[in-house]
Amino acid sequence: MTARRSQSYACPIRDVLDRVGDAWSVLVILELSRGPCRFNALQRVINGISARMLSVTLRHLERDGLVSRKVLDSSPPQVEYALTDTGRSLNEAMGQLAQWAEANQPAIRKSRATYDAGMEKAAG
Amino acid sequence: MTARRSQSYACPIRDVLDRVGDAWSVLVILELSRGPCRFNALQRVINGISARMLSVTLRHLERDGLVSRKVLDSSPPQVEYALTDTGRSLNEAMGQLAQWAEANQPAIRKSRATYDAGMEKAAG
Repeated sequence: MTARRSQSYACPIRDVLDRVGDAWSVLVILELSRGPCRFNALQRVINGISARMLSVTLRHLERDGLVSRKVLDSSPPQVEYALTDTGRSLNEAMGQLAQWAEANQPAIRKSRATYDAGMEKAAG
Repeated sequence: MTARRSQSYACPIRDVLDRVGDAWSVLVILELSRGPCRFNALQRVINGISARMLSVTLRHLERDGLVSRKVLDSSPPQVEYALTDTGRSLNEAMGQLAQWAEANQPAIRKSRATYDAGMEKAAG
């Protein structure tokens, strides 16, 4: 009974964590929540992401139906990315977690420092 | 300006994603949200987790101050794990995301299938 109980939530959550567990995906979604954005502009605002990693991340998000891709009629041709409705709803769902993260970051850092100090003491 | 804007949310979110991005941590938190649990019982209900991985996961959660560890006065001695107040609040914040995951899983799967079919067609 308990095993089945676990299985029932493991599956969809893991599926989503493929994306939400990937910090680059989260940052791309957050950035696109401000509005559609071109590849180069995305790379500029997301610190430390390589062109290759951004390209892979966008492809995953597009595959999941979270991000749409539009080739602009410009010269040279440029590609604009935007959140889909599903992507927007994920961004909203992530909001609560982001607020939690912001609010609890000091407590987590403090706990880690205390824990590590205890470990050092035990080892020393 | 935009670069700084990105940095300001990247930091706490990444910090939390260390835990939330790890499916095992999420499953342990969800399981402990039902009440305190011993190591062996946790391993039994979380499908596929090895004793080593559960031990590492619990240590990380304890270090972050999300899970508490109590050695029970039993023979042989047993250890009981429970969510702390911070852990409970994280579980609540994850709730919205879990609901989203559950609700949107069919759409994501469908989108992936459509995307993959398009890729195959393009390659073929």
